[in-house]
Amino acid sequence: MRDLNAIGRIGIGDRGGVTRLVFSIKELRSRQVLIHLMRQAGLSIHIDAIGNIFGRFEGNDPRAPAVLAGSHLDTVIHGGKYDGPVGVIGALEAIRTIREHKISVHSSLEVVCFVGEESSRFGFSTLGSSLAAGEVHPRDLANAVDPQGTKLETVLGSLGISRHNLKSLKRDPKSLKAYLELHIEQGPILEAKGKRIGLVTSIAAPSRFKVIFKGRADHSGTTPMEMRKDALVAAALFIEYVERICRQYSAMEKGRVVGTVGALKIEPGVINAVPGKTELSVDIRSTSAQSKDRVARLVKAQARAIARQRRISVDILTLREEDPVPLDKRLLRVTRDLCDAKAIDYEIMPSGAGHDAMQMAKITPAGMIFVPSKRGISHNPLEWTDPADIALGAQLLMETMIRVANEKL
Amino acid sequence: MRDLNAIGRIGIGDRGGVTRLVFSIKELRSRQVLIHLMRQAGLSIHIDAIGNIFGRFEGNDPRAPAVLAGSHLDTVIHGGKYDGPVGVIGALEAIRTIREHKISVHSSLEVVCFVGEESSRFGFSTLGSSLAAGEVHPRDLANAVDPQGTKLETVLGSLGISRHNLKSLKRDPKSLKAYLELHIEQGPILEAKGKRIGLVTSIAAPSRFKVIFKGRADHSGTTPMEMRKDALVAAALFIEYVERICRQYSAMEKGRVVGTVGALKIEPGVINAVPGKTELSVDIRSTSAQSKDRVARLVKAQARAIARQRRISVDILTLREEDPVPLDKRLLRVTRDLCDAKAIDYEIMPSGAGHDAMQMAKITPAGMIFVPSKRGISHNPLEWTDPADIALGAQLLMETMIRVANEKL
Repeated sequence: MRDLNAIGRIGIGDRGGVTRLVFSIKELRSRQVLIHLMRQAGLSIHIDAIGNIFGRFEGNDPRAPAVLAGSHLDTVIHGGKYDGPVGVIGALEAIRTIREHKISVHSSLEVVCFVGEESSRFGFSTLGSSLAAGEVHPRDLANAVDPQGTKLETVLGSLGISRHNLKSLKRDPKSLKAYLELHIEQGPILEAKGKRIGLVTSIAAPSRFKVIFKGRADHSGTTPMEMRKDALVAAALFIEYVERICRQYSAMEKGRVVGTVGALKIEPGVINAVPGKTELSVDIRSTSAQSKDRVARLVKAQARAIARQRRISVDILTLREEDPVPLDKRLLRVTRDLCDAKAIDYEIMPSGAGHDAMQMAKITPAGMIFVPSKRGISHNPLEWTDPADIALGAQLLMETMIRVANEKL
Repeated sequence: MRDLNAIGRIGIGDRGGVTRLVFSIKELRSRQVLIHLMRQAGLSIHIDAIGNIFGRFEGNDPRAPAVLAGSHLDTVIHGGKYDGPVGVIGALEAIRTIREHKISVHSSLEVVCFVGEESSRFGFSTLGSSLAAGEVHPRDLANAVDPQGTKLETVLGSLGISRHNLKSLKRDPKSLKAYLELHIEQGPILEAKGKRIGLVTSIAAPSRFKVIFKGRADHSGTTPMEMRKDALVAAALFIEYVERICRQYSAMEKGRVVGTVGALKIEPGVINAVPGKTELSVDIRSTSAQSKDRVARLVKAQARAIARQRRISVDILTLREEDPVPLDKRLLRVTRDLCDAKAIDYEIMPSGAGHDAMQMAKITPAGMIFVPSKRGISHNPLEWTDPADIALGAQLLMETMIRVANEKL
């Protein structure tokens, strides 16, 4: 908890919100603090080209594939202090405890802090783990740009990463035995069911895209209503539709769908001009690939229909198209057995939020442990998890790491 | 045209848009250029506390009330080069021509450049002329703040203007005989009717307010649709209503109403969070005070109804509440007689846009002359008026100034 609080103070604002956007000075500071903590713990440190930090504790067989555990330290704007750091500091604490108690492990253990799990700056999520999993294609980066107009490609370029060497960051799958991630639930289910641990079966993945309506900017006083091409009214009709269709699909059996328009930019965006252009950020998620794709298709078709009806134009730019990711059943059995042995009341559940685990699952068996979020609130200064639950989650993570390091999966 | 182009180059951007927000460095430069031009023209210059610039040419009777003519030099974001400057440079050119041709005038003539006619920065329009007309009350300033969070009150304070001496900027009505303003139409009517001159009967005034919906920011992946309090969906329903009700009222006889939501801010405003707060800027206008007030009331009631239905909260902050302003009938007759004498085809029409003339009308007889706007486009880089029309408007302005200076109204 002391280390979590130390990280939580970096980027804290007036109202208690924590802001550490990827590659910001605050986020870089949090990484420096982590490196310091890793050194104190006696780990050997490796940092890859994008800045993913790996801290390694050698096992009895240094050539055996390693058990990796971690998460991320970057945050959304005005977020909380547990989304991400719980998994990084939890894994660090697990390894520190193993070391202090001289517990024998066959495989080496590694803590990892992935860069840029949150999409708040560039609209691009799980950046570091996607690169470590070799899952980023140059075309994925093309539309990623921050609100100041800085392209993600430019930032990567300044770190020496270009379209030509994207794949060089991929971690050799043969060097890994498993990836484990402890995380807060960020949803209301564990609290509602009175459970302290969630064991994750699969991760709902987002379809993310931008919808850009182009009408015509006009004077708000002199342009008759019937002569306008108002890009904001088109956006309003679209926003309402996203809610309506997702409510329909969240009542269906196939798999709950959630859809959100989270950001909207207007040009010129002043009180005395009819909006000429609007740019909306859309996020559609489900644990069912079929439901998600269907809703995404409907939503895009509606954007085109609105533009047609209102005689304006529309562009749709894909930001990210991910499939839901099943996690490893053997790792789930290990964590379930440990819970059963200790009489911990757990819930087997999917994850509505995306996590680095969904990238790592593509190159190694991956598992996730959830701890409850008070009132389900996350990405918000009110985000809170009981320290006793964090401790229980870290304990379970440690025991899972030991077992996976010593036994055949 | 040379002087207009010189002003138009200050604050010009990549795509040809001109941005000179009030009190920005660009706007201050445009004022300096004007002072230089006034000095070259041999005018005596007076600058009041807020920065309104008066350039005076003495008539035969220096004690007689002066004929004032002008407009503003500030612009919207990415606006055009004629909205405002045509009236300032047109009046300057009129006085230069009178002086060059040694035309005798009984009353003194003054050019004026008013500060901050546009509301783009603080959501507060006709700032300088309102102060010159003694029409600003401290409560009007309370909600005026720019997107960076700077309060208009703070800027005024730095100029030595406080709640206590607001009235000291009022121009003595006895020192004025009339106010005349040449302006581009900023609407499509003159072009549609093939007229080169518009003579303005009255100015539609805006009701302006902010609507702030407060819901709850949540994670976009883990929060079921039915548990959300999405402030952007509430905003979308509101935006759609504003268009719907104004379309209804623009078909009515009483007086055309136009309503616009031009700006919208979202918190947190990122792709992966349900919007917790939205702030909308609303502008409702009509030449009928009754229609405007009715629509503003309906729109505000709808904002409250939406908030109630969706179990979120709403605040409504008044920015400006203006009544439509009739212009002086005697000045209209002077301009009409001049047009008739020269066989100029004119249109007698109201103004949908607000102008400094609506403030000056409160302390002196005020008149306005419009020249056509190509395709009715304004507040946009594509804003354009034929130079021959600008010349004709300036000529008519000059002849009106001479007649008003020499004859009894």
